[in-house]
Amino acid sequence: MELKELGCRAKSVKYEVALLSTEVKNELLHSIADALVADADEIIAQNAIDMENGRKNNMHPGLLDRLLLTQERMEAIAEGLRQVANLPDPVGEVLETFTRPNRMVIEKISVPMGVIGIIYESRPNVTPDAFGLCFKAGNAVILKGGSDCIHSNKAITDCIRKTLSGKGYNPDMVQLIEATDRSVTAEFMKMKEYVDVLIPRGGAGLIRAVVENATIPVIETGTGNCHVYVDKDADIEKAIAIIMNAKTQRIGVCNACESLVVHEDIREELLPVLAKKLQEKNVEIRADEAAREALSGLDNILSATEEDFGTEYLDYIISVKTVANEDEAIAHINRYNTGHSECIVTENEAVAEKFKQQVDAACVYVNVSTRFTDGFEFGFGAEIGISTQKLHARGPMGLRELNSYKYTIVGDGQIR
Amino acid sequence: MELKELGCRAKSVKYEVALLSTEVKNELLHSIADALVADADEIIAQNAIDMENGRKNNMHPGLLDRLLLTQERMEAIAEGLRQVANLPDPVGEVLETFTRPNRMVIEKISVPMGVIGIIYESRPNVTPDAFGLCFKAGNAVILKGGSDCIHSNKAITDCIRKTLSGKGYNPDMVQLIEATDRSVTAEFMKMKEYVDVLIPRGGAGLIRAVVENATIPVIETGTGNCHVYVDKDADIEKAIAIIMNAKTQRIGVCNACESLVVHEDIREELLPVLAKKLQEKNVEIRADEAAREALSGLDNILSATEEDFGTEYLDYIISVKTVANEDEAIAHINRYNTGHSECIVTENEAVAEKFKQQVDAACVYVNVSTRFTDGFEFGFGAEIGISTQKLHARGPMGLRELNSYKYTIVGDGQIR
Repeated sequence: MELKELGCRAKSVKYEVALLSTEVKNELLHSIADALVADADEIIAQNAIDMENGRKNNMHPGLLDRLLLTQERMEAIAEGLRQVANLPDPVGEVLETFTRPNRMVIEKISVPMGVIGIIYESRPNVTPDAFGLCFKAGNAVILKGGSDCIHSNKAITDCIRKTLSGKGYNPDMVQLIEATDRSVTAEFMKMKEYVDVLIPRGGAGLIRAVVENATIPVIETGTGNCHVYVDKDADIEKAIAIIMNAKTQRIGVCNACESLVVHEDIREELLPVLAKKLQEKNVEIRADEAAREALSGLDNILSATEEDFGTEYLDYIISVKTVANEDEAIAHINRYNTGHSECIVTENEAVAEKFKQQVDAACVYVNVSTRFTDGFEFGFGAEIGISTQKLHARGPMGLRELNSYKYTIVGDGQIR
Repeated sequence: MELKELGCRAKSVKYEVALLSTEVKNELLHSIADALVADADEIIAQNAIDMENGRKNNMHPGLLDRLLLTQERMEAIAEGLRQVANLPDPVGEVLETFTRPNRMVIEKISVPMGVIGIIYESRPNVTPDAFGLCFKAGNAVILKGGSDCIHSNKAITDCIRKTLSGKGYNPDMVQLIEATDRSVTAEFMKMKEYVDVLIPRGGAGLIRAVVENATIPVIETGTGNCHVYVDKDADIEKAIAIIMNAKTQRIGVCNACESLVVHEDIREELLPVLAKKLQEKNVEIRADEAAREALSGLDNILSATEEDFGTEYLDYIISVKTVANEDEAIAHINRYNTGHSECIVTENEAVAEKFKQQVDAACVYVNVSTRFTDGFEFGFGAEIGISTQKLHARGPMGLRELNSYKYTIVGDGQIR
């Protein structure tokens, strides 16, 4: 189907989605969850084609694992949709009410965005997850997944559309762009007339491409060059526990720690113990000169370059920067971070306060691991991504962040 | 100065602006207001050069008037800055607090955007106005005004910078791009590394150019193809008063009425009386066939084309569309409007409720003129513009909308 036709359909169905009651949306989410489990065999068979193509194209084992669908994963996907059904509906909340001196009454009310476009890579679970969140928040959605994943995405989308039709609803509430050439993606990003917001989900390259080419307003998500700063007044045990957790609990996630910043007064006490533990977990250490001095008793400590400080490794690597005080730490973090999650370990309240105030990031932690930047951990439920920009939403984006607002103004003939 | 150098300076001063106390910001705004009045002669002399060039280039009289600075207008500009000083400071407000089961305490706190870029046309008053709002909201600002206005803008910016320096503050809190070639503007829109948000202020062409070329997140403002729908259950007197006000009180503004939508059952009663009043104010009427029938007794009623319905005239012209019911009215408005301000005149509460819910616009009015879409009228004070997009802010954007937020998370060693 022509991309424009797809856009027209989404635009014309968006008002229908916006008006669905909470009960209807929840019922449909449960029906779709059931249908995805019922159709799991067919979906897994289509996924097998993508897997086979992936193997032929020498896809990285990590990516192949992300691509794979199993009965168990289909159950988890269905459970995810049921959880979204249980979350509160963000639409139609009266956020503010005020009466002006001329007696007109202004209400600020949460409303759906309209049509949300999601551009993502070869992870078929994003297809139902993104649909579920956008739909519950009252939006029509157009999905553009990775071409490596097209058979899986098509099977999942067909199943959702079939369920919507079967219940008497317009299936265009969710549409998949099936064309796999890049020029189509480029054209999609400029369909401003039809799409209200674009959310890219994936690696830094994908996100950059969307930001650079889209004319539709974009919410940037995901890249996280996250730091843990250990202040001179840190509790060493807390510091070690937080760094080990933030660096090694899961290396490939955007809220993992990529860089350690250490106050010079505490480096002798902290670094040798910490480095040993990191090396036991096979974490490569790339340290600046002052840190390497403190680590002279250990083997395999590499030198950190400027490039290291700017790199989101998503790997068993950590950079180490030594600073003379918290001001230097803050300046270093504000220079290299990506606006995601930053942590200070300190028992000094004044220093913690300064760090909280001055570090420029979506989530600033005091004595807590950066790994908590997550919709579930924040209590928002499932999330569409972690926003690293400052417009609209920052940090974990749940259902509420998939809404906009409007003002309604009621009077009895007021003029200026 | 190189554009990049300008960006670096703004980026490095933004944390300084963000940390200024409310008292310091207000004192500086008052000092700058005083300085602009004290330097009015010099600023007006520079403005005279722009005016002279404008006349030589056959600038439209309306634009020349917008370009002109006088002693009185300088006083008004200063008064505007003093009013901004009196508005509440949006920075540092705790928007939400919640404690998670693991006892970490999450606060959502309003913070400045950082560096705001403003691209605008030949209206020198935007220079101090935009600076005042961005600055009070804790942001550094980079201004790019119209080339026709460069001498005026330079004089005003110099005066602000001089005042900041004189009080011991970094003058780079406000910077003006002095280069006037378009390639510089194009480069500026892509300075994502240095500028957090871009707000274009001006006509539809300027806004389109920014949306299409910027990689910095943009807030779209301004274009308003606003409708008044007169329902069959309307109070005719209210309808006439509202339409006359929305159409003729000020024609060149974005919240003026451009199109009238009329229920067919009320056209005979409404249109002849209304059209006569509009023609007395020299408003040209472009009507569809059903409306022309009702207006057969009047001369000079033109035919409306599809193009008319999509046009923001900003002129003494109004289009008229006849509909069979409110659903047609809503569909027509959702097809042609620009997401700005839309009005229904009706005494029927159910129809009003449907219109409020289903019309897709920043501001939806019931029995109130669209002319109230304005920061002062909403009680927000001065505004940076009217957002017509759905990300971040919708409708009048005051100080609060020039802030983002961050989460701070405080604990005692929590890990996952």
